[in-house]
Amino acid sequence: MYYPEPIAKLIDAFTHLPGIGPKTAARLAFHVLRMKDDDVIDFAKALVSVKRNLHYCSVCCNITDCDPCRICQDKTRDASVICVVQDSKDLVAMERTKEFNGYYHVLQGAISPMEGLGPDDIRLKELLNRLSDERVKELIMATNPNIEGEATAMYISRLVRPFNISVTRIAHGLPVGGDLEYADEVTLSKALEGRRELH
Amino acid sequence: MYYPEPIAKLIDAFTHLPGIGPKTAARLAFHVLRMKDDDVIDFAKALVSVKRNLHYCSVCCNITDCDPCRICQDKTRDASVICVVQDSKDLVAMERTKEFNGYYHVLQGAISPMEGLGPDDIRLKELLNRLSDERVKELIMATNPNIEGEATAMYISRLVRPFNISVTRIAHGLPVGGDLEYADEVTLSKALEGRRELH
Repeated sequence: MYYPEPIAKLIDAFTHLPGIGPKTAARLAFHVLRMKDDDVIDFAKALVSVKRNLHYCSVCCNITDCDPCRICQDKTRDASVICVVQDSKDLVAMERTKEFNGYYHVLQGAISPMEGLGPDDIRLKELLNRLSDERVKELIMATNPNIEGEATAMYISRLVRPFNISVTRIAHGLPVGGDLEYADEVTLSKALEGRRELH
Repeated sequence: MYYPEPIAKLIDAFTHLPGIGPKTAARLAFHVLRMKDDDVIDFAKALVSVKRNLHYCSVCCNITDCDPCRICQDKTRDASVICVVQDSKDLVAMERTKEFNGYYHVLQGAISPMEGLGPDDIRLKELLNRLSDERVKELIMATNPNIEGEATAMYISRLVRPFNISVTRIAHGLPVGGDLEYADEVTLSKALEGRRELH
């Protein structure tokens, strides 16, 4: 160890973040060293606050600092449509299109036998509970356009069949094999428009 | 604002780090959300600790948690040679070669008219103070092999002329235009071996 302990610890902490190797971690740590005291303290507080003040919405399972979350509390939205996404970043991507005015359900994952994730590991039970609400007429499956996302969409469409609710899939306007989070607004809007019945 | 406030703040904090854009920042923030409570608290403590417990060594100007730093305290090192580097990461790169057993001086920057950094903005005064120690026979200039580093090395070699101390420059074994921090151990060792008098 050539670095003094405090900076070595910070480098180590940065290294544990995804996509950050030891060189980048050192660069970030030295940047922190040059930051203003207040900014560093705000950063530290933000880290702790994320763990302390956020939890899952009891309705849609999105992360939120109030329960139900702001979207579920919003009575101006269309209660007949629920858009099902894999995670909170995907919900934000959908919101950015400004084309969707229904509610969401965040699965917090997808069915992935490769990673050992089955139907019980995602928020399916919570979704099924919501379907007893008679206002729900349509589920839009906006899971990622890759194997796991497609499998999850198919699985849910079969599960929902007894409810007499239409299950649609956003169109493959988005590049197949990609990640919903990175799609641009126009592509996502197109995909939303071109949705079709899942058989 | 589509994210709940705590996570939006953390994303913002990450965005202020160098080389991290909004997408990466969101990814990192959501990773923090999934981290163990203890790990997040350690991370936050490491951030604050870096600002609270680190300062510059009064001898060599390296960052340190004790004064003088561990290298300056080490009496087994060769007091006749001082290796001058631009920053602490460069010192660590030199230490990794295990070929150098003298002391260091960390300039904490380089002379760069483009960035408005003159000789007074780097730790030159502290270096000159150390040269009154009669044991010092050689200054090895290990500043970066780019314009600013070369200019700084030249400037110091002229400044030091009255002291009757030999000023050497690590050899251009390292790729010109690069960054000392990223050189591999062998290249750095070669550069150290092939050092020559600065005229």
